[in-house]
Amino acid sequence: MAKLQIDSELLLHDLEALASIGADPLGGITRIAYSPTDLLGRAWVAQQMRSLQLHVIGDAAGNTLGQYAGTQPLGAIMIGSHTDTVAHGGRFDGTLGVLAGLACIRALRDAGIHLRHPIEVVNFAAEEATVLGTFGSSAMAGQLHADDLNKPAYDGQSIAAHLLAAGFDPAQAILARRSDPIAAYLELHIEQGDVLEADGTPIGLVEGIVGIRRYRAIYTGQANHAGTTQMARRHDALIAAAPFILAVREVALMYGLVGTTGTLTVQPNVPNVIPGRVELSCEIRGMDDRILDQAEADLYQHAQATGGVLDLIARKPPVASDPMLLDVLASCCEQLQVRYRRMPSGAGHDAMCMAALAPQAMIFVPSRAGISHAPDEYTEPQECVQGAQLLLDAIIALDTIL
Amino acid sequence: MAKLQIDSELLLHDLEALASIGADPLGGITRIAYSPTDLLGRAWVAQQMRSLQLHVIGDAAGNTLGQYAGTQPLGAIMIGSHTDTVAHGGRFDGTLGVLAGLACIRALRDAGIHLRHPIEVVNFAAEEATVLGTFGSSAMAGQLHADDLNKPAYDGQSIAAHLLAAGFDPAQAILARRSDPIAAYLELHIEQGDVLEADGTPIGLVEGIVGIRRYRAIYTGQANHAGTTQMARRHDALIAAAPFILAVREVALMYGLVGTTGTLTVQPNVPNVIPGRVELSCEIRGMDDRILDQAEADLYQHAQATGGVLDLIARKPPVASDPMLLDVLASCCEQLQVRYRRMPSGAGHDAMCMAALAPQAMIFVPSRAGISHAPDEYTEPQECVQGAQLLLDAIIALDTIL
Repeated sequence: MAKLQIDSELLLHDLEALASIGADPLGGITRIAYSPTDLLGRAWVAQQMRSLQLHVIGDAAGNTLGQYAGTQPLGAIMIGSHTDTVAHGGRFDGTLGVLAGLACIRALRDAGIHLRHPIEVVNFAAEEATVLGTFGSSAMAGQLHADDLNKPAYDGQSIAAHLLAAGFDPAQAILARRSDPIAAYLELHIEQGDVLEADGTPIGLVEGIVGIRRYRAIYTGQANHAGTTQMARRHDALIAAAPFILAVREVALMYGLVGTTGTLTVQPNVPNVIPGRVELSCEIRGMDDRILDQAEADLYQHAQATGGVLDLIARKPPVASDPMLLDVLASCCEQLQVRYRRMPSGAGHDAMCMAALAPQAMIFVPSRAGISHAPDEYTEPQECVQGAQLLLDAIIALDTIL
Repeated sequence: MAKLQIDSELLLHDLEALASIGADPLGGITRIAYSPTDLLGRAWVAQQMRSLQLHVIGDAAGNTLGQYAGTQPLGAIMIGSHTDTVAHGGRFDGTLGVLAGLACIRALRDAGIHLRHPIEVVNFAAEEATVLGTFGSSAMAGQLHADDLNKPAYDGQSIAAHLLAAGFDPAQAILARRSDPIAAYLELHIEQGDVLEADGTPIGLVEGIVGIRRYRAIYTGQANHAGTTQMARRHDALIAAAPFILAVREVALMYGLVGTTGTLTVQPNVPNVIPGRVELSCEIRGMDDRILDQAEADLYQHAQATGGVLDLIARKPPVASDPMLLDVLASCCEQLQVRYRRMPSGAGHDAMCMAALAPQAMIFVPSRAGISHAPDEYTEPQECVQGAQLLLDAIIALDTIL
């Protein structure tokens, strides 16, 4: 068959159109999972799927699937990502992968081509950490537990409450495991880092998604008067915690990981009272679970040495991409004559969950200045189109191999 | 005249009675300045004053004065403190000084004695930092400015709003400067530190109240994804701020001051986002303004070296007590055969403001474990009574000297 091309104009138009849903007066895009603006955005995507004559299915967790029929009774090749955002997020994170999926179908349909495999475009629900993180793909992969429903979302409300408010039955949502076979899962996403930009490389082939370990550290001191309590008799929780904050960074550097203390709250947080309690959350990420084990041991040692109590609160193992998919993507890049590099993903993605159901791999396109989750998030139009074209070429190549 | 004695039973009964007003179901006493419970407590004190046949006057700032006539046309000897508390505060802070004042009057009145000087028992309004800090005594000393009214109280509402809600005219409140002469001001107060307890000394004679300098430090970094942003390319505001937190302590230790970082907030304070902004407040306290100057210069240097912007947001100079009053108090202690030590006060007090109007000094009694501003605040009954007795003896001694 003749070489199929992504319709760049329609893809960029779709990006523009979806960015107008949830455009936040205070900056960026706000389509927090299961909120009215998120549901509006999802409805718009579903409408686009229907206008491409896809068979649209919504599952119990809120994931939306648009199915493009194949000529043979094979497992689907699934492509997509998510359209929910953080508060004041950008217009590319997740969205690009879903709209590129639609663009691939559009190219096939306009050419009147059906591949051997069915192609499914997926718009996962609740990928962002506002609601657990990769909630929809975890549900599809059968990785949720009943107690996840009681966990707090970004606003302190339970996840169950958010599902209910959006019209979903929480008990059903966590049972939304996919049973139909999936031949492969491919996801196009912005890098959210600046490796590609710094390197001048337009395509990243994601070798794997880092493992994440997230901890809570609590330092308990004695709140007391900042004027009358002698220095030698203080139990200042913030003074105890400060070296640990620095240790998180040092441990990450030592093991070649990334490590971050992202949240910290002081109690009572009053200018003339010695901090009586500090609670912080920190995390480390890396591709090798054994190295994460060593770094974790160091963190526990640092916490203990400084009088803190460290608890592991979340752990996601590293997920390697499928080597064959990576080779197909690399060969497509070579045929497109576009430079690429293999690289890990420092962020979690729906692809990480889909690894439980199918071989998976991801395509990264550059993020300007590495910025994401912010109004300034930006990827050049031709880079978006190039990513979508690679996705299309890879589907067609895989269809003959799988 | 025969040696007058404080009626310990009635003083302890008064402490108990006032502790029932604003007793907080969540612990401690909550009589936040100008709140309904504070006004109730003040009304109870005014009623006690009336039952002692004092002439009760309320000024425009909400201070309450109970006047016990003297035999000669002299300036008053003023004794007292405040009955407002922090949220979940204790039953002694401030309250003891006011009720001890009433106990002194009771002793004089029961003996049918009027001194040469009028004696005034004062219950200052709004001493706690919930509303500016030493608001009532600052008003009496003529130290308030119109723009103080717009400053936020503990709840973000303006001070003016709190005054209005309590039935005071804000514009009048800040003009409540005392014009009648004051011969001396004496204040009995709990130490709020553990120097006396550690030392086994029941009485502290306050040589002066430390100067306070309070600062805000702002560290600006770049909020970014905690997984995808390489360690070498981060601008982490919390990593920048952590060494400064430790430096505040080091500077205080180096100069023999107390120094505290009491508040710290991280933005956006999300587990998987590198902190983009940290704002903290810190303070140093000491008796010598020149040493505070040196410590301040060091703090500016540390902030600059770590990329922070430090601003002085409040400055109260040290206030020395009147040496003659201290000598009279020391001599009264010797006659009472009670051990005492001279010591600075690390906390601000109404006496600090009264220094602008009259010679002043303070008496400290021990705080168990140095705890104050908390439900566990405690001073032994006999220590409360001993402090009140010293106050009474000092008034009588001063009456003949002044």
